[in-house]
Amino acid sequence: MVKDKLIGVDLGGTTIKFAILTADGDIQQKWSIRTNILEEGAHIVPDIVESINHHLDLYQLDRDRIIGIGMGTPGTVDIENGTVQGAFNLNWKDLQTVRKDIETATGLPLTLDNDANAAALGEQWRGAGNNDPEVSFITLGTGVGGGLINDGKLVHGTNGAAGEVGHMIVEPHGYLCTCGNYGCLEQYASATGVVHLAQDFAEAYVGNSKLKAMINNGEEVTSKIVFDLAKENDYLANEVVDKVAYYLGLASANLANILNPSSIVIGGGVSAAGKFLLERVEKNFKEFAFKTTRDVTQVKLAELGNDAGVYGAASLAKNSERALA
Amino acid sequence: MVKDKLIGVDLGGTTIKFAILTADGDIQQKWSIRTNILEEGAHIVPDIVESINHHLDLYQLDRDRIIGIGMGTPGTVDIENGTVQGAFNLNWKDLQTVRKDIETATGLPLTLDNDANAAALGEQWRGAGNNDPEVSFITLGTGVGGGLINDGKLVHGTNGAAGEVGHMIVEPHGYLCTCGNYGCLEQYASATGVVHLAQDFAEAYVGNSKLKAMINNGEEVTSKIVFDLAKENDYLANEVVDKVAYYLGLASANLANILNPSSIVIGGGVSAAGKFLLERVEKNFKEFAFKTTRDVTQVKLAELGNDAGVYGAASLAKNSERALA
Repeated sequence: MVKDKLIGVDLGGTTIKFAILTADGDIQQKWSIRTNILEEGAHIVPDIVESINHHLDLYQLDRDRIIGIGMGTPGTVDIENGTVQGAFNLNWKDLQTVRKDIETATGLPLTLDNDANAAALGEQWRGAGNNDPEVSFITLGTGVGGGLINDGKLVHGTNGAAGEVGHMIVEPHGYLCTCGNYGCLEQYASATGVVHLAQDFAEAYVGNSKLKAMINNGEEVTSKIVFDLAKENDYLANEVVDKVAYYLGLASANLANILNPSSIVIGGGVSAAGKFLLERVEKNFKEFAFKTTRDVTQVKLAELGNDAGVYGAASLAKNSERALA
Repeated sequence: MVKDKLIGVDLGGTTIKFAILTADGDIQQKWSIRTNILEEGAHIVPDIVESINHHLDLYQLDRDRIIGIGMGTPGTVDIENGTVQGAFNLNWKDLQTVRKDIETATGLPLTLDNDANAAALGEQWRGAGNNDPEVSFITLGTGVGGGLINDGKLVHGTNGAAGEVGHMIVEPHGYLCTCGNYGCLEQYASATGVVHLAQDFAEAYVGNSKLKAMINNGEEVTSKIVFDLAKENDYLANEVVDKVAYYLGLASANLANILNPSSIVIGGGVSAAGKFLLERVEKNFKEFAFKTTRDVTQVKLAELGNDAGVYGAASLAKNSERALA
């Protein structure tokens, strides 16, 4: 029987997303279940296995047609051994033998990687990256993550820490980061970073601004509120957005100066600000990028939204030596 | 006949270096000729061909034993087509069909790359990189160049501009660079950058300093003089070295935050300052590197000196699909 289907799994702290795709990356079925993190996350792997087996039966899909399962997961992934540790939002305290457990229970080969890398691969394959071999991905959420594709493959580095673009230093001796260093991109371009900048700028600003009034009144300010107010021409909010765009432009340019990708794709919740943010990032990017790369590297918004993870997970399975063995 | 020898060629503006190596990278013969850049560099390729053919005869080496020739060259290299343009220090004004010309005249396959990439491969294979698959290389000379090895192969990027570490922005809105941008690493860590910093610092410094006296007297100051005076405890010279080390440490850390290599190898003329410079770079590196990569990435001095180019060129030939075809 011809193997022509991929299964992509995007394991997150609240939801586990699944998709069955063609080998070319067209999603044919998509579903999700809640992540049950009770009892140190002991239900997670059994739930994944059960859900895959159930849906293969439901769609009467012969498992001989499955090339493999790919999965993106939080935590630190040991790709060689197929294990995960330190996934605190899954309540996994010890090392998890994820690959062995899923392969045994489904009879299908599994390829694992971390969630940011999976999302990067998804955008590279089927999203804004146009399936180009050189794509860098930055995701702006609660934190700032990323994934780098060189010559069509993920860059992992020596111990899997490649692509930690959120910890590029963009303001030496700047804001203290959760990682212990000062001035990481994450502290300026994540949802919390945007709010931190707004609070700092509000303190020094004396003009008229709804954002300043909200902060002074102790109202809850989110990064979405900052962008929305900026779009309504709030002066202070625009100062904040300009600063966020400056740091993102600087980081993107240094990524491009190092890797010379065809595109730098920006995704995640903060990127919902869309073209409004992108145009300002581009302006800064063009100021800081070396001319040879400035001419070819495009800064783009991600296109796949929440589906990036399952697409990328499927891509992991597609290109896995494990699945082809 | 078993193919067991490599030829490495390091083409520079004043000298062309050659070596014959075993497949494992041991140099067996080494020689060099002057680069004749007269008549728009028209003699360069014929001189290379003649020198290779002459030495194969001299050493009575059967050309059936040659796996291939690798060559590092200045200018912009089109790796796919084997051509070079914009090599101004060779006086090459038009596009040069280097690969075709050398292959035709020697009967041996040629693999080309730019000189910084070749030196990076050399250090990765046989120098400070210990043949690890993940190595970043920074070379500090008149300018600042570099080369990046991921998964054992050079990173080229979309249009060959990957590894332009000299144009990473380390001081936004800082010194104007020859590339047109402001604040590139090259303006702070090249030989000219070190002198520029010294001149700037001297202007603001009012204490006792031999370096300041030299600058005030209009004497010629080189980066070597700055480092030598710093070693003699000249206060101003030490301030300059601290600043150079700060920028190199910041750039190295951001490289590591992105690529997570096992080592960042620093070579080129300025690196002759040795451990004196390296220790200060390491201090800054540890301050700016993300903890996961800080634990594994070592900042090291290059070990091969002027031979890095021929080693790396040979490595190009060794791993070339062209040579194996």
